[in-house]
Amino acid sequence: MRAEIIAVGSELLTPFRQDTNSLWLTNELNRLGIRVVHKAIVGDAPDEMRSSFGYALERADVIISCGGLGPTDDDRTRETVAELLGRKLKLDEEILRGIQERFRRFARTMPDINARQAMVPEGATILPNARGTAPGLWLESSGRIIVMLPGVPNELKGLFENEVAPRLSRIAPSERLYTRELRIWGLPESDVETRVRPLYELYPDTETTILSAITGIQLHPRIWSSDPTKAAAVLNEITSRMALALGEHLFSTRGETLEEVVARLLTEHRATVAVAESCTGGMVAEKLTNIAGSSAYFLGGVVCYSNELKTSMVGVPSEMIEAKGAVSSEVALALADGIRRRTGATIGVGITGIAGPGGGTAEKPVGLVHIGIADERGPRERAFRFTGDRDRIRTFATQTALDTIRRYFLFPATPR
Amino acid sequence: MRAEIIAVGSELLTPFRQDTNSLWLTNELNRLGIRVVHKAIVGDAPDEMRSSFGYALERADVIISCGGLGPTDDDRTRETVAELLGRKLKLDEEILRGIQERFRRFARTMPDINARQAMVPEGATILPNARGTAPGLWLESSGRIIVMLPGVPNELKGLFENEVAPRLSRIAPSERLYTRELRIWGLPESDVETRVRPLYELYPDTETTILSAITGIQLHPRIWSSDPTKAAAVLNEITSRMALALGEHLFSTRGETLEEVVARLLTEHRATVAVAESCTGGMVAEKLTNIAGSSAYFLGGVVCYSNELKTSMVGVPSEMIEAKGAVSSEVALALADGIRRRTGATIGVGITGIAGPGGGTAEKPVGLVHIGIADERGPRERAFRFTGDRDRIRTFATQTALDTIRRYFLFPATPR
Repeated sequence: MRAEIIAVGSELLTPFRQDTNSLWLTNELNRLGIRVVHKAIVGDAPDEMRSSFGYALERADVIISCGGLGPTDDDRTRETVAELLGRKLKLDEEILRGIQERFRRFARTMPDINARQAMVPEGATILPNARGTAPGLWLESSGRIIVMLPGVPNELKGLFENEVAPRLSRIAPSERLYTRELRIWGLPESDVETRVRPLYELYPDTETTILSAITGIQLHPRIWSSDPTKAAAVLNEITSRMALALGEHLFSTRGETLEEVVARLLTEHRATVAVAESCTGGMVAEKLTNIAGSSAYFLGGVVCYSNELKTSMVGVPSEMIEAKGAVSSEVALALADGIRRRTGATIGVGITGIAGPGGGTAEKPVGLVHIGIADERGPRERAFRFTGDRDRIRTFATQTALDTIRRYFLFPATPR
Repeated sequence: MRAEIIAVGSELLTPFRQDTNSLWLTNELNRLGIRVVHKAIVGDAPDEMRSSFGYALERADVIISCGGLGPTDDDRTRETVAELLGRKLKLDEEILRGIQERFRRFARTMPDINARQAMVPEGATILPNARGTAPGLWLESSGRIIVMLPGVPNELKGLFENEVAPRLSRIAPSERLYTRELRIWGLPESDVETRVRPLYELYPDTETTILSAITGIQLHPRIWSSDPTKAAAVLNEITSRMALALGEHLFSTRGETLEEVVARLLTEHRATVAVAESCTGGMVAEKLTNIAGSSAYFLGGVVCYSNELKTSMVGVPSEMIEAKGAVSSEVALALADGIRRRTGATIGVGITGIAGPGGGTAEKPVGLVHIGIADERGPRERAFRFTGDRDRIRTFATQTALDTIRRYFLFPATPR
């Protein structure tokens, strides 16, 4: 079964706003065994809408539109579809009463224009919308299914889950899409590809997408199958073999973020952590605390941007900063050890580097970052050289600091 | 002039990846006076591609495609366009030499498949791509312009700026789109709309889009005009009147972020700042330091997640925490004052609150956040009640803390 998604709304043709509903819808449709073969984004001009819906009717089995069901003259999805299918629009009294009732509940009178939302093409099934005034509409015509949903994400999701998915599920093919998500840190995309590519030929039924995000490389092996048990077995097998090929660089086989993995490791080991950050400016602390319950393992940290604060708050000797420079192995070690001692955490992390764009020298270029990690046995340190702009360097340094904590638990004897 | 953008690539029909080139392209096209009337996203199936390009040829003056110019069998943009226009594909020796040369520069031999990238439809103008192997292609046919660009953002941007924009500029209509971007914090979207809506009727030629982002409300007044001076005058006028209507809630009339505005104010006043954060977990420090040169005004901060750190690092009396609770006006005041004294900053900011999802009580619910600000005259404090999930509450608290610094400089006599 082939689907086309049409996002309706002139604001989606500006540089400011993007259609995001279609990503969510694609995932839901794929899980039902329906492939998305085309996406279209149209404004509210009648010609354009006719053209987009008309073409979609020629090539897809299922057409899902989002938006254009509001009460104003610009909301023309109902009219366009009715016209293309040669159906009349009729006022549905029950929908009208529902909309009036909804306005009453919020102590308001329904404006006359909202009556437009009760207009329905002949033969349409009405999909009740618990979260808004515009109901969804389901139409069948010459073997095609047309589903009209509102563009408000919250309303669209509720309608799809409650009304559309059960109906599609009854008619969708038995073949469904099954996926895994592997995440990798510390290898460039091309190396990840080189390591896993030999597996592609061994699993010709599995398609694997590789995505490079600033927070890590993602591998998405996918398989279409009518047998969930078999699909799971194949995906487990390919995931295990990918894990072998990727070694310690693989940090999750279920789509977790690096901070989620670190949170899990800290919790499992009943360990606590504290950080002393310079160039990352609080980003490591921010990541570690964006997880609910982080107070169980995160004690706190210092953003010691100035040299004075490195000394007064974390105890880095000012002579050391003067002799070695604020960006140095020695200071990273002292930050990691100092923050651990001052907070009483199991693990201390220290980060110092040059995020740029200014401040670099030939000896210490922009992108140079020292990351230290300390436990009761003392601190260790590694230097990295990241490339890109300030934001990218800070994010890479932050992810690498999180990964340093992960690897600490992975290799307890020789942490790096 | 009407444009259609076609994004080519099967990965854009998965739930994982979004076409983002079209937002950038839309902005560039609008500035050239060209409206985007349709966007399409297609995979690499030959039928789908033919259908999308075919329909686009029927309805747009300019068609810009992104992607499908790579060296593999799946890269079919060249073939599809040539076939639809009835042109032959020919090998261009000069492009081939360029690609071979490029491989040599990276000390590699060109794989045979890359020769496909030198195939060109008859009559096409070749647009040299300094950043990659695939050149862009420009074709004219029956009054339509078809521009084929690679999908890699960096290559696409270079090609558009250097090769496409100058050519389009010569034939584009004299009417261009002019815009402003106003940013607001501290008012809900509906209030912003209520305040500025009366202006819409006074400026019927101006269209205004209102966007609600987690970092603030944005207003984009836009005008199409063939007279830049007149357009600027109208936009200046409507911007001034919007500024009046929005009062102190307006923080930028040129699309700056809140942290950029705060950075500017701190620099102008030669002031320094330090922060003591609890529930925001480093996010305020992170925002303040994601601006180049922030070491001039940001001294540092403490992420005092545990009560012990609030006492040991910022000097909040432990009896106060015990008596009033860590989330209290008193502790916010003590954090702001304490971090200012310990760092010697002009301004100290203290934040304590309940980000959730756990930890709330009837008296101190999830979303309650106290924000303190201190200067040499002492600390002041305000309490807020934010709604939403953990991430939203932390982001709102962070933005409000930045806004508190902004308002400190706006109302020096009575800072809040």
